[in-house]
Amino acid sequence: MSTLDPAAGKAVYDADRAHVFHSWSAQGLISPLAVAGAEGSYFWDYDGNRYLDFASQLVNTNIGHQHPKVVAAIKAQADKLCMVQPAFANDARSEAARLITELAPGDLNRVFFTNGGAEANENAIRMARLHTGRHKVLSTYRSYHGATANAIALTGDPRRWPNETGVSGIVHFWGPYAYRSAFHADGEAQECERALAHLENTIVFEGAQTIAAIVLETVVGTAGILVPPPGYLAGVRALCDKYGIIFIADEVMAGFGRTGAWFAVDNWDITPDLITFAKGVNSGYVPLGGVIISDRIFETFRERPYPGGLTYSGHPLACAAAVATITAMRDEKIVENAKRLGESVIGPELRAMAARHASVGEVRGLGVFWAIELVRNKETREPLVAYNAAGPAAQPMNEFTAACKARGLWPFVNMNRTHVVPPCTSTDAEVKEGLAILDEALTVADAFCA
Amino acid sequence: MSTLDPAAGKAVYDADRAHVFHSWSAQGLISPLAVAGAEGSYFWDYDGNRYLDFASQLVNTNIGHQHPKVVAAIKAQADKLCMVQPAFANDARSEAARLITELAPGDLNRVFFTNGGAEANENAIRMARLHTGRHKVLSTYRSYHGATANAIALTGDPRRWPNETGVSGIVHFWGPYAYRSAFHADGEAQECERALAHLENTIVFEGAQTIAAIVLETVVGTAGILVPPPGYLAGVRALCDKYGIIFIADEVMAGFGRTGAWFAVDNWDITPDLITFAKGVNSGYVPLGGVIISDRIFETFRERPYPGGLTYSGHPLACAAAVATITAMRDEKIVENAKRLGESVIGPELRAMAARHASVGEVRGLGVFWAIELVRNKETREPLVAYNAAGPAAQPMNEFTAACKARGLWPFVNMNRTHVVPPCTSTDAEVKEGLAILDEALTVADAFCA
Repeated sequence: MSTLDPAAGKAVYDADRAHVFHSWSAQGLISPLAVAGAEGSYFWDYDGNRYLDFASQLVNTNIGHQHPKVVAAIKAQADKLCMVQPAFANDARSEAARLITELAPGDLNRVFFTNGGAEANENAIRMARLHTGRHKVLSTYRSYHGATANAIALTGDPRRWPNETGVSGIVHFWGPYAYRSAFHADGEAQECERALAHLENTIVFEGAQTIAAIVLETVVGTAGILVPPPGYLAGVRALCDKYGIIFIADEVMAGFGRTGAWFAVDNWDITPDLITFAKGVNSGYVPLGGVIISDRIFETFRERPYPGGLTYSGHPLACAAAVATITAMRDEKIVENAKRLGESVIGPELRAMAARHASVGEVRGLGVFWAIELVRNKETREPLVAYNAAGPAAQPMNEFTAACKARGLWPFVNMNRTHVVPPCTSTDAEVKEGLAILDEALTVADAFCA
Repeated sequence: MSTLDPAAGKAVYDADRAHVFHSWSAQGLISPLAVAGAEGSYFWDYDGNRYLDFASQLVNTNIGHQHPKVVAAIKAQADKLCMVQPAFANDARSEAARLITELAPGDLNRVFFTNGGAEANENAIRMARLHTGRHKVLSTYRSYHGATANAIALTGDPRRWPNETGVSGIVHFWGPYAYRSAFHADGEAQECERALAHLENTIVFEGAQTIAAIVLETVVGTAGILVPPPGYLAGVRALCDKYGIIFIADEVMAGFGRTGAWFAVDNWDITPDLITFAKGVNSGYVPLGGVIISDRIFETFRERPYPGGLTYSGHPLACAAAVATITAMRDEKIVENAKRLGESVIGPELRAMAARHASVGEVRGLGVFWAIELVRNKETREPLVAYNAAGPAAQPMNEFTAACKARGLWPFVNMNRTHVVPPCTSTDAEVKEGLAILDEALTVADAFCA
């Protein structure tokens, strides 16, 4: 941990306020914490405050902060060759693609690299549209797919609303979510069955021959950590096969260890046609994303030019970080650790907390990818704050968040949920430390219960 | 230069062919050169072939390859802190934003960071639409703005055609291009006058109150290095002011020294409302782009949330590379070098070559940003290959390209043009070496002239 230097922190903050425009924010209403450094599961500011990072930044530092092998690989690649353009071959790019396809299921044997997840989804739907010759794309309410034009149009959360400026051909449907069933189901099995019937009806009424792709977060991320019930993804795969639709699994958040598997689809032995990824592939140490492509879709572009690209596709520095990240995750059994944490520590502890706290409506997840859904009343399941609440309407969650931070925990909070999404490298002691703080902070939430 | 290692090169190539999906390509019809290393104005393969990089990769390595100060800064930042999420303040992010806004004209005092140019343009038009409450965006034929949905819809080159899948609200108009005037003008002054009249007519007939923004590459890049005639950009600025339209200058390719000025708009003393950038800001050593924002547009988002973002906005590693790049460019007077090269070396040499070669219809440019436009006949100005020619129809340009590569020059070739876009750091000797090769290769093109 670095030495205290509040004056340096103030200079960073002041320059930020004078010149940096922040994502998803009213610029005059934020007060960004100046982060001085980070290591493993923690980061710290210039005033000596250290935080346990239960958000993995934005659910991306799967390997923790400043993993020495990844840092060393970035430095070695910087010395060797920072950048060549996408038309060339490059050793870091080749090796990253080889490792990623080796991990990917089935015949997903090629990688198109992008800078991040939004571009990955943009390119995946481009591939699907050109491969099928169809135009429409289906995605779910309760989803996030990125903030470029098509990616935000795919998105099923309120971030889409101010951005609906003329992208057509995207249709939203309802995915499975047994706790708040769109289908009045009595449990997971019925939810699965009804969600698949709803999807098939949507396909039929939109016209199967107009639908290029279905895009799903394998496990829905920011919109709720919604784990699909057994059979759902297999059902989607079957519907895609039946109607000639491309199955795009968005694993930008769920991939690379987060669910205790390399890819979230591995939990259900499903092979989609395209997988999109970013974040965990190199823990965000250098911007990188991409699309993993099936042989069948690859063939479409064997002699027909693929009409998409970007200057930094397959960026050597980013790819070198991916190679080091994947190698370290394998060598250090980090994915196995994530799985074990979910099964042996986070799951049992959260279930115990759910029993203790009036405000906990449901806990759900797997690996290091969990949600605690807060309610005003366990019977009615009324959310602790309304959908997309902001300002005073969000006060209960704001007080919960403040209680976490005051105790040295940086939580991931979205609407009426907090997500438990620490690095996959977390130790049992770190996770227990964080859960104990959440346990205390939940008493703040309990006070709002009816 | 690294040692010869053809076997290593073959392994890189084979893994690339097995697993890497390339931008803008028919995957089975390409044979990517495996690049082993690069330094300054050169790169090399594993077989001992060295190339003078007259393309600056994709017109991004303005500071040349592997500049030691930028490499050192990346390594230092990697040791310190690779990544924090966008909601935090960070020293590298603050300092990059401060330096960029210090260089930018007028009241462009804030920076929203993205991963590259496409996302920069996506966010710029989002800002313009929300600031104005209007929907349409105007851009030019002969332009490139990126490959995400809105960015490719803005684009005015054939890369748009396979991607027109449902983005509405984009209208294309004709910009000034005296050599192939859309307005039957007799020279630059008349071209300027008529292009502005055409733009105003387009605004009036589209309905000024429906138009959020006009997006222009300040100097059109890949679509032709089209330098606006004196008065054009001032005229656009005046039309934007008259009709309440946001002026977005896309300087992804033209910015950060390429035109012999920090920003291309500086050549005409114009202040747009938003400038988009990428590439040269850190020479692409780490993926980075962004939007520089006027005070007026910033005010729109002071208390109203800005509905856009990305995980890697303001990525510390990328921002540290930008700080080092800008500082080195200042200290070593690299922008001044680019200006001098254009005025004293490239311009005079290209004009002399134009007089010598039957195939050279026009040369144009400034700084290290020049085009040689090849024709079958100087009188008729018939392009050496047709618009968007491919395969056998592009043979004259393919032979020209091969002649350059055989002589150790890596050219930038687009349709019937080659662009002279070396690093801003190039020495006179390097530029003369490259121009001498182009001079020889043009004799290949001359043979196709009528």
